[in-house]
Amino acid sequence: MILCGLPGAQGHAEVDVDKIAIIGLGLIGGSIGLALKEQKDPKLQVIGFDAEVDIGTKAQKRGAVDKAVWRLPEAVEGAQIVIIATPVLAIREVLQTIAEMLQPGAVVTDTGGTKSAVMAWAKEYLPQGISFIGGNPLTGKDVVGIEKASPALFHNSRYVLIPDKAAHGSAVQAVVDLVSTTLKAKPYFMDADEHDSYAAAVTHLPMLLAQTVVGATSKSPSWKEMSRLAASGFEASSSLAGADPLNNLDICITNREAIVHWANEAIREMARFRDLVSGSTNEAGAEALGTALARSWEAREVWHTKYLEGDISDDAPARPSMPSPGEQLADFMIGAKLRERYQQMFKLNETKEQERRQRRFRRA
Amino acid sequence: MILCGLPGAQGHAEVDVDKIAIIGLGLIGGSIGLALKEQKDPKLQVIGFDAEVDIGTKAQKRGAVDKAVWRLPEAVEGAQIVIIATPVLAIREVLQTIAEMLQPGAVVTDTGGTKSAVMAWAKEYLPQGISFIGGNPLTGKDVVGIEKASPALFHNSRYVLIPDKAAHGSAVQAVVDLVSTTLKAKPYFMDADEHDSYAAAVTHLPMLLAQTVVGATSKSPSWKEMSRLAASGFEASSSLAGADPLNNLDICITNREAIVHWANEAIREMARFRDLVSGSTNEAGAEALGTALARSWEAREVWHTKYLEGDISDDAPARPSMPSPGEQLADFMIGAKLRERYQQMFKLNETKEQERRQRRFRRA
Repeated sequence: MILCGLPGAQGHAEVDVDKIAIIGLGLIGGSIGLALKEQKDPKLQVIGFDAEVDIGTKAQKRGAVDKAVWRLPEAVEGAQIVIIATPVLAIREVLQTIAEMLQPGAVVTDTGGTKSAVMAWAKEYLPQGISFIGGNPLTGKDVVGIEKASPALFHNSRYVLIPDKAAHGSAVQAVVDLVSTTLKAKPYFMDADEHDSYAAAVTHLPMLLAQTVVGATSKSPSWKEMSRLAASGFEASSSLAGADPLNNLDICITNREAIVHWANEAIREMARFRDLVSGSTNEAGAEALGTALARSWEAREVWHTKYLEGDISDDAPARPSMPSPGEQLADFMIGAKLRERYQQMFKLNETKEQERRQRRFRRA
Repeated sequence: MILCGLPGAQGHAEVDVDKIAIIGLGLIGGSIGLALKEQKDPKLQVIGFDAEVDIGTKAQKRGAVDKAVWRLPEAVEGAQIVIIATPVLAIREVLQTIAEMLQPGAVVTDTGGTKSAVMAWAKEYLPQGISFIGGNPLTGKDVVGIEKASPALFHNSRYVLIPDKAAHGSAVQAVVDLVSTTLKAKPYFMDADEHDSYAAAVTHLPMLLAQTVVGATSKSPSWKEMSRLAASGFEASSSLAGADPLNNLDICITNREAIVHWANEAIREMARFRDLVSGSTNEAGAEALGTALARSWEAREVWHTKYLEGDISDDAPARPSMPSPGEQLADFMIGAKLRERYQQMFKLNETKEQERRQRRFRRA
């Protein structure tokens, strides 16, 4: 496997990569292995290591690695590229352990969901001459394990890259090539602190909300009955609670402050929605609720369209305070329908029957 | 199309259904139409009506109906079965309007997401001799419109049926046949109040959480930047905010009390998780957080496995207070790993460097 300008012993020329090590053979590590093996490069050896021996065996059987080894040095020694695909806190141990085993000029990258702590550990433990490029593939957060691994897991998804300041430009290029050519993902460069503060909002908060919906419902005495009504909506809403709990734990611990901040924001927002629902007993109240529902529908549609199109350009419409072109569109599309609805609703609702029916709604 | 024992003018024998009306041609109505047309019954006419003329035109072009008509009587007159697939509050108007147009023995069903109000309206407006069977297909809550309609939308999904007390047994059988044979879904009988209280927890609360994640993030001044990191996790978490806002509004208004109840439960649960994250700065705190994450992972896995297998049997494990077999399994599988993790984590964490790094975590 030839990667452009990998910093080898012989300088920054193109080198032929003949050994890549993958540490951690779960969904992400296994999928990277499958994508590497899919290239059918006879000169490239993909060596895997997992702390659990049977996961290594499974990964080898699935063809995600040429060989799974039971000693970390055997995986790492002589590898030009080392990919650490463990839960976040384990990355620290791996970096400490492999620091002295790496060959000069080796490139190390990881796939952890938080990045500030990882970048600091790499700086602390890795010797000079080793290039570290932090990574976070923005995909596959809702399933676990080598069994679900797929070479197509990363196709068209974004892949955050955060080069350490001391990383060789050519090492960065090597990881970019791996991400874009082998994994068919889209490299996206950013700062570690920036990554963690944004990921808290758009990945870790959704994870917390998934914990919330599962926690609130599954602890109810009626869970047995209500779980039979749970379907695609519940499945989507709870999906991040299906990710590896050990990995979720590490993410909470390494991005604690930002996650607590967003949990508080979400509690405020949910209380606001609850009050809107609670106050929707007259026309003005229903209009306020309907407007809020239309606004979030629109924000989600604008984002989702861009996401599906892979559009992460700088002209994504800014939010909020100023009405965006999208907001005017929503007003145009939904405003009239909503207004008509409120009026009709409360004209019809002012009957004794409605009040009687309201009383019949059973409390959950 | 022959349905078992449809109550026709000639009594409760089998009748040949030659006209079915679908009122409301969005995702659900359109998908029912496509499934009916897929049967290629030359004697069956599927007539559609939508308040928006261009939606009717689109449905006819897509082949979801034989003909879209612009006047409600034209759709309903002579139909043996009338399917109302509009947002919930519009069902009331439709029932009022069609009551006197229905032929004797006609069967009326709906697809609304709340059922107590709908059942009461049917009782109030429909004349004797008309059978009403309330329905709610538990699928397709996260997309909108005839464009996304598919005859396979209901395959293997559950489909709640709530017969009015006065409905003929043979009318119930006809709807069961439609649901199981034509839509290939699984009929699931229950009480309307029961449905609404459970749906509040497992469908309407997830919808509210989707509003929450979209509301909290999209109103942030950093939304433009953070939205580029939003990926599959955000997509799943926010998906129910992508449903028709008019329909979401109707659901909130017709199931207000139960939704407010579950919003409060969710706020409590989220505050509990926030406190667990916030308190995960020592071994005991991390263990408490890890245990909570493992518990919800397990509850979600147990539910999801059953859901994917279509298992809604009575022996679904009860929750909680008593440890279930599943909980013991989780302890066995994850408990030891977690304990090892906490110990290692806090042995390594007690360094000055860690404190320095903690301070570097930017607030979101």
